[in-house]
Order: sequence, then structure tokens, then C-alpha cells
Amino acid sequence: MPTIAVFDSGFGGLTVLRALLPLIPGADYIYLGDTARLPYGAKSRQTIVRYALSSAAFLLSQGAEMLVVACNTASALALDELRAALPIPVVGVIEPGVQAAAQLPTTNDQRPTVLVLATAATVQSHAYAQACATLNLTAYEKACPLLVPLVEEGWIDHPVTAEVLRIYLSEALAAAPSVSTLVLGCTHYPLIRPLIERTLATLNHPLQIVDSATATAQAARATLPGAPSQTASSFEVGSATFYATDSIEKFQRLGSAFLGQPLPEVQLIDLGG
Amino acid sequence: MPTIAVFDSGFGGLTVLRALLPLIPGADYIYLGDTARLPYGAKSRQTIVRYALSSAAFLLSQGAEMLVVACNTASALALDELRAALPIPVVGVIEPGVQAAAQLPTTNDQRPTVLVLATAATVQSHAYAQACATLNLTAYEKACPLLVPLVEEGWIDHPVTAEVLRIYLSEALAAAPSVSTLVLGCTHYPLIRPLIERTLATLNHPLQIVDSATATAQAARATLPGAPSQTASSFEVGSATFYATDSIEKFQRLGSAFLGQPLPEVQLIDLGG
Repeated sequence: MPTIAVFDSGFGGLTVLRALLPLIPGADYIYLGDTARLPYGAKSRQTIVRYALSSAAFLLSQGAEMLVVACNTASALALDELRAALPIPVVGVIEPGVQAAAQLPTTNDQRPTVLVLATAATVQSHAYAQACATLNLTAYEKACPLLVPLVEEGWIDHPVTAEVLRIYLSEALAAAPSVSTLVLGCTHYPLIRPLIERTLATLNHPLQIVDSATATAQAARATLPGAPSQTASSFEVGSATFYATDSIEKFQRLGSAFLGQPLPEVQLIDLGG
Repeated sequence: MPTIAVFDSGFGGLTVLRALLPLIPGADYIYLGDTARLPYGAKSRQTIVRYALSSAAFLLSQGAEMLVVACNTASALALDELRAALPIPVVGVIEPGVQAAAQLPTTNDQRPTVLVLATAATVQSHAYAQACATLNLTAYEKACPLLVPLVEEGWIDHPVTAEVLRIYLSEALAAAPSVSTLVLGCTHYPLIRPLIERTLATLNHPLQIVDSATATAQAARATLPGAPSQTASSFEVGSATFYATDSIEKFQRLGSAFLGQPLPEVQLIDLGG
């Protein structure tokens, strides 16, 4: 089984690792959170590409044989550059998420219109709109710059977060009233999924929700020729190594909520930022 | 007149440059916003020191003869390291801000208790509490992680920002009911000063407010032996050069509000992050 590297700007990508562990239980995992340079979501393409390439070079030096880009912003802005630069398979989160949205049952004969909540950088890249267009889907992309800070503040079930969601979702539904599917286009957003569902209910506009983590893990498994087709019923994190470029204490504390289990030791590395 | 470098993680430090221009009108200015690696406020001391030193090295290579650290987080966590590493005077924002607070008139014989709103990293450093202690002031430091994202979102007069301020200020005033002075311990906060004043009025707890920008500019002038004691009535930004490590477009767009006038051309530089 290969060594699989999972890369994110922070610890949000641990939700993707969480989905990978039972799907490819025999692999060795290396997780890198580039926390010294986060957030990627408000920065330029040029800077995000530079950060993603230096992160990938580190993971390659650690023996990575596959790279899963578990960060929507890096997937949106740097996937082509990563694939061109690396001699290993590179899987992003955007195509798998959009494919999962396309496979949802529809209530009528029409292809669904997809609402994508994401960071400013991801929205500006229009990576989701392009991925949707190849599957004959229409996408409406909504930038939600405050959601990551609110999740990082721990306000995942808080009236202020509910009000911010009401504003963002009202604006999006007013601009694109025919949406039937919501894609969570940032790895932080699954933590406020219950609040998103309650807000949509309040707005009388329930939506099918796609979380890209599972779809991405399945896409990663599909690239492995000899991968088992069955999901393991039990698995261990013992073969996973965790690196962060800053704030190991915060990474360890908040990361457990994303991974769904206590995090083993996290090692600090310096990527020269 | 010397070449004065002003350094911040973003464009908030432009409020300090704005205060410097009329006070030291003959100087040449170099401004650096380390936007590729912002925000500093949620990161560790080790990382902030590394970023501050590499930013200062660039400014020194550009001919800086004085460094004004217009970032509260960098002043709180990296000022000693900057002073040890640089052969030029280094002025931070914390001591001048605290000195300005100490000079405010008091309503009774007691020295005022100071409430400091700041980023998580600044609060964890307790730099304000230490600076206050040397002046026989008591400080209560309150971390406000959401205020920078709200200002960057442009929600400077918005019900959500008012509610977040109400929560932060209520918590602080409950923990430290005797405060009489508020120090804005982050260069982003002056933009929401009117909302802060309205929130304090709603809470029936008006406070004297200190914005460190003017006090810092005065401290910088005091280090110049031949500086004029009069403030210029007119001045030009013509001798100022602006650098950012990312997002020139955003820097140019949002920076004008902080500088109080249109920003000249901003140059992109790569500090190797």
C-alpha cells in the first residue's frame, strides 16, 4: 500500500483524512497543515501556488506516493501546477465534490443547479463553475469569508454564526433561487453543517448537501490499482504522521474535532515562510 | 531627514503612516504590508518573530534608518528580537499606546484600569499588561479574533459586527467592571471606533478610547534629534514607497480607507514565504 500525503492550509483537511482511513486502511499517511501561512482563502493565486508547491515538495521528500489536496482553495488555484510539478498522482477535492453533486437524485428531469459556499479565493477562481460546466451542471458560487474565522473561534453553534449564515444564504438564494444542491466548498464548513441545515429550514429552502470529504477519499482510492473495494470496519491512525508549520498546540486541540478522534503527536516543520 | 520604514502584517499600519506624515513631513517613507503571511494575530511567537525579522531585513536593504512596527502583534511578540537584530532605532505601538492611556485625565485619584482589545497572539503575550505595569496601570486584555475578519469583510457598520462587539465588550466589562479607558490594540480597530463607541453607550459604560497611531508617530519623532516640533499643515505622500507580499489589488482598494487618501502604486515583493 502506498504512502498517501494529505495537504491542507490548516486542520480542516483532517475531515478528508478521516474519510480516507476506513477506505484505504492499509496505507501510510502523512498529513501537513500549512498553519504558519493560513488562511489561503483570502490570498492571490500566485501566492497560493507558491505555498502549495513548497508544501508538496516537503511531502515528496517524506516519501509521498500520492497527494490528496484536501484544501478547496489550493485545489481551485494550484491543482494544475501541482500535477505538472509532481511525479505522483494528485487528487483534489473539487472534481469529486462536483461529481457527487451530479450523482444526487433529482426531483425533476432537470440537472440540478448547485450552490457552492467557499472562500473568496476559491470563488474568484471559478474552479467550481468550471467543474460543474463539464458535467452540464450550473453553479452559483458564494464567497463566505467570515465562516472560517467563526469556526476557528469555536462559534459552531452560535447566534452570530447563524445570523452570518442567514445573510450569506439569503443573498445566494435571492441570486440563484432555483438551486437544489449545496456543496460545502471549504473543509471548515462540515463543522457547521447542522447550523447550515437549520438556517436553510428557517429560510424555507431545504437543500441536499454535499460534503466533498467522502467523495475525495473515494476518488483517491480509485487511483490505486489494487485497492480493496470494501470499506474496513476498523482502522488505526497509528501509521499516520502529522506535521504543521505553526501552532501545534492549537492544531492538536482543534484538530481532534475534525479527525473525529484524538490526534497523535504533531511535529513542527519550517517551510521557510 | 531619515528614511522611515513602517511595517505591518497588512494595511492596518497605514493608520500609523497617516499619523507620521504630518508629524515628520520631510522624511522618506517605505511601507511594507506582509499580506502573504497575514494574519499574524492567530500565530505563534516563533513564527511571528521569523516573519518580522525577514520583513525588517527587506526594509533595511531598502535603506531604512528607523523602523516603526505598526503591527500590535509584531510589537508584542517580536520587538526585542527586532531591536537586537537591527542597527537602527525600532519603535513599536504598545509602549506609546499605554503611555497615552496613562496621560489621560482621571475622574478620581486612582490610576485608570485599562481595557485592551487585541488579537489572540497579542493577548497571550501579555505585552500590554507588562507595559501597563511599568506605569502602575492595571490592564485587562481581551482577545477579539473576529474583529479583523469583520473589518476585512467591510462590515464596519453592520449589525453582526455590533453584536460581536456587544459580546466581546460585555464579557470584558463583566470580568473587569472598573475599567475607565479602552486601548485599541490592533490597527484594524480604529475603523470600527464609531461602532465601539455606540456599543459602549448601549452597555451604559462609556470609556475614554486610545488609538495608538498618533502616540506611536509622536514616539517616532521623539527619537529624531533634529525633528521639527511643529506639525506640518500640509504634506505629501510623494516620498512614500509601498510594498506588499500579496494581493496588491486588495491592498490598494482597502488601504486608502486606512491611509485616509488614495494610495500610490503598490509593489509586490517576495520574501520567500
